[in-house]
Amino acid sequence: MGTSMSRPIITLTTDFGLADGYAGAMKGIILGICPEAAVVDISHDIRPQAVRQAAYVLSTITPHFPPGAVHLVVVDPGVGTDRRPIAVRSGRATYVAPDNGVLSLALAIDPPHMAVHLDADRPFSATFHGRDLFAPAAARLACGLDLSDLGERVPPADLVTLPCLSAQRRPDGSWLGHIQHVDRFGNLISDIQPSALNLQAAASNAEGTVWVGKERIAGVVRTYGDVAPGQIVAYVGSTGHLEIAVRDGNAAARLGVGVGDDVRVEGIP
Amino acid sequence: MGTSMSRPIITLTTDFGLADGYAGAMKGIILGICPEAAVVDISHDIRPQAVRQAAYVLSTITPHFPPGAVHLVVVDPGVGTDRRPIAVRSGRATYVAPDNGVLSLALAIDPPHMAVHLDADRPFSATFHGRDLFAPAAARLACGLDLSDLGERVPPADLVTLPCLSAQRRPDGSWLGHIQHVDRFGNLISDIQPSALNLQAAASNAEGTVWVGKERIAGVVRTYGDVAPGQIVAYVGSTGHLEIAVRDGNAAARLGVGVGDDVRVEGIP
Amino acid sequence: MGTSMSRPIITLTTDFGLADGYAGAMKGIILGICPEAAVVDISHDIRPQAVRQAAYVLSTITPHFPPGAVHLVVVDPGVGTDRRPIAVRSGRATYVAPDNGVLSLALAIDPPHMAVHLDADRPFSATFHGRDLFAPAAARLACGLDLSDLGERVPPADLVTLPCLSAQRRPDGSWLGHIQHVDRFGNLISDIQPSALNLQAAASNAEGTVWVGKERIAGVVRTYGDVAPGQIVAYVGSTGHLEIAVRDGNAAARLGVGVGDDVRVEGIP
Repeated sequence: MGTSMSRPIITLTTDFGLADGYAGAMKGIILGICPEAAVVDISHDIRPQAVRQAAYVLSTITPHFPPGAVHLVVVDPGVGTDRRPIAVRSGRATYVAPDNGVLSLALAIDPPHMAVHLDADRPFSATFHGRDLFAPAAARLACGLDLSDLGERVPPADLVTLPCLSAQRRPDGSWLGHIQHVDRFGNLISDIQPSALNLQAAASNAEGTVWVGKERIAGVVRTYGDVAPGQIVAYVGSTGHLEIAVRDGNAAARLGVGVGDDVRVEGIP
Repeated sequence: MGTSMSRPIITLTTDFGLADGYAGAMKGIILGICPEAAVVDISHDIRPQAVRQAAYVLSTITPHFPPGAVHLVVVDPGVGTDRRPIAVRSGRATYVAPDNGVLSLALAIDPPHMAVHLDADRPFSATFHGRDLFAPAAARLACGLDLSDLGERVPPADLVTLPCLSAQRRPDGSWLGHIQHVDRFGNLISDIQPSALNLQAAASNAEGTVWVGKERIAGVVRTYGDVAPGQIVAYVGSTGHLEIAVRDGNAAARLGVGVGDDVRVEGIP
Repeated sequence: MGTSMSRPIITLTTDFGLADGYAGAMKGIILGICPEAAVVDISHDIRPQAVRQAAYVLSTITPHFPPGAVHLVVVDPGVGTDRRPIAVRSGRATYVAPDNGVLSLALAIDPPHMAVHLDADRPFSATFHGRDLFAPAAARLACGLDLSDLGERVPPADLVTLPCLSAQRRPDGSWLGHIQHVDRFGNLISDIQPSALNLQAAASNAEGTVWVGKERIAGVVRTYGDVAPGQIVAYVGSTGHLEIAVRDGNAAARLGVGVGDDVRVEGIP
């Protein structure tokens, strides 16, 4: 897949920050192996060891990259334990990461065809697999190496998955979901999708009622631009999930709501 | 213009931070449309919705890019309202942004020749025009598409401009200006230019007196290296404006001064 | 050296942050002079004027870049004083920086062959040599210019070096070293190397005892994955130095230890 691209792409998503040299060392390794690659920083600001945050961020960017991109994710609290280092190929992309569930949200929308347990081909650091194992593998894949040359096959169904926060329909017809991410603006991104709201993405539905924290929000609008500054609003956001925001404000701070908290939707037929 | 460059350049200036996938999704879209582009992060650390900060930062970098660069700016508090999405071509560069004044400081020094109101060519998110409208437009322009193919022309004089903080000469011969930016080091960057100080950039003038906060600073020096550590100093900075700094210290914290505060210069003939 | 590479590489390590345009302006200058360069962000999050932090971070990344990379470092508290702007060539790389010791840890493991005092070829800002002097020099070197064309030669032995934190063997046979860096995870990275521990990198030694702060740690293990969550652990880290960590925790916070603090190792034959 790498070979069919005009220019290999390797994206980086880590919890390394940029005040240390960890991300920089990975970039050096990659450019030494695959000099023509476009090395694309997605985030090095994932909270330390926050596997779920990385999984969510990854799932929001992979649909927007051209086919054949290699996505390298290093959020790895289990480095040095027996958690598996893996590479995974789907219909759209290639992924390199520890097998700790960090790929599972992306793979839920881009199903894996093949996975391998990465072999180490030389002694390497027991604490920085990002540099010594994952980055070389990603660079070789981006420059055209076959996945099967990197290690033993693993059944894709055996890969670790995160317990998925997914919205449930309840007997009374309401939907119960959860906040799965709070973004920089304090917008609350739930796991409830438009089908649960009986509408298309970016449409509105004046009938439903959304409950989050102690707030009751009447109806789902198209965008926060549709309400007055300071008003709390529910809409289908850019990732295709119900979001709650305060126009020109911070919903997480105002509502005291965070990741994992409940969101309910009532009154949708 | 894009076609005459050896390698297309697209710069990114946003308030998205890097703990979400917003900037990453834009990079994916750009590389899918214009794979050979150099995608250059200017800043994703603009304060949320701080249009003026983005406008200032943009104006400090555009003079230093080669002709033909495409500058994509997404600081967009009005996303989803009727503020216009625009693309603008000047003698030196192409700009893609919401029409909220964020380009106005850059265009004041690099006047626009032509502007268009960007058409949406497919349904797109009502809350993330950066990914669905601005990034595709910037990528197409960088890879050679004509500006006129992206939408209806808008008279450049109709573009939104920020109320400009510009220094004024007063009847008593003194100059009154304002702090327009505080940088990471706490340096205070004013809107007073060397001509108001009767000197060339990076020269000194021992005659004038600079007032800021409760401080009186005698004379304008060449650089903070000319004074002792801990001393307050006025000089013409790298953007061609009068700056106030504390050598090896933080002037904003020490003087309690911030964006919008007054700066006066007296005693310049 | 630049000419022998398939693609020039220029890395950037600065204390500029990304909320101002300083790093962006440097990137524009570089791409104007050497358009095909891969411009690689190592860090713009070095603490303001923290020369030692930048020196350490640089020394951790240079071994991992392909030969011929140009490393541009701008942490420059002395800008505008008579500290020298320099470019240095080693067997492996080229460095461009102020001569304030910021290169000295990297050059200790990659010795310099030749150094020059950079000439200014035009008037330039007295406060932003990164943009006006260092970035153009780095770009010209990356695109193949000879080092000797950029200024007068300086004996490499005359370059400023940081007082090195290096571990010492004491009369009683113990080793005394110091914490030289605290990373984002709170891991404490010392200046004690495996030879002092009588072992190979990434091996373990159950005999020694490590003292740091008020803690006594029995033995050196292979990785924090070898102990239980919450346990304090000593191991040889990815940079080849003794590190102290708390598995799934923050050692700096838990032990109240920081840069410059003592680390002792006893009981190694």
